[in-house]
Amino acid sequence: MESCLFCKIVNGEIPSTKVYEDADTLAFLDIKPVNPGHTLVIPKKHFTNIHETPDELLGKMAIVAKKISDAILKSGAKGINIGMNNGAIAGQSVFHAHIHVMPRYGKDSFSLWVGKEYDGNEREEVAKKIRSVLN
Amino acid sequence: MESCLFCKIVNGEIPSTKVYEDADTLAFLDIKPVNPGHTLVIPKKHFTNIHETPDELLGKMAIVAKKISDAILKSGAKGINIGMNNGAIAGQSVFHAHIHVMPRYGKDSFSLWVGKEYDGNEREEVAKKIRSVLN
Repeated sequence: MESCLFCKIVNGEIPSTKVYEDADTLAFLDIKPVNPGHTLVIPKKHFTNIHETPDELLGKMAIVAKKISDAILKSGAKGINIGMNNGAIAGQSVFHAHIHVMPRYGKDSFSLWVGKEYDGNEREEVAKKIRSVLN
Repeated sequence: MESCLFCKIVNGEIPSTKVYEDADTLAFLDIKPVNPGHTLVIPKKHFTNIHETPDELLGKMAIVAKKISDAILKSGAKGINIGMNNGAIAGQSVFHAHIHVMPRYGKDSFSLWVGKEYDGNEREEVAKKIRSVLN
């Protein structure tokens, strides 16, 4: 897509610090990492988010994210968070699908969500609703 | 694995609120969701984390996570965060690989990490180190 930052990176119009590349995917360092080594895995072709990315390509992206995770661990990280934000409300800022691979060492700016238990039979009702629209 | 909570869920020894199931994967509601509908996608066979999960199975888990994401969006969510925590330091609490699919609506307890730019040529050095151990 002409105006897309990540498409420009794929096309070489904007420089990036590449970590890995194959026919379908590209992995490069996030310029504002949660920790050094924070890598983004993207499809070379433009898809906005997880919903639009074809199944096979999404599977390939996940396998590349694993490959990067393995390398980051070998490089000294103690754990890895994988993240993919879909939609502005979920914190997505570049609307070209991307998987974050984030090395963790200890203290940093990453904080996990806090969960809250369901009330009464809300859980079963929510599951029923999701199952009813599942393809 | 005998003592594993998620293996017990797969085996039916512990109840869960299932959303989806196929030969290789199971998806059920997290009991402490960031928002109602927060779903976990797991392999039926025991693997500790992303590093141990075989490529093909990980790809299948990602495709199931997409399927659940699509359904959750249809159920009324405005966005989706995908997360996978690998290692205690990354917040993993059950050591059976799992992908979180988290519906977002607006205000909740989810907060994204804060990134920090690299200094000097640190970025190129970090990428070189990762590339050198990439298989």
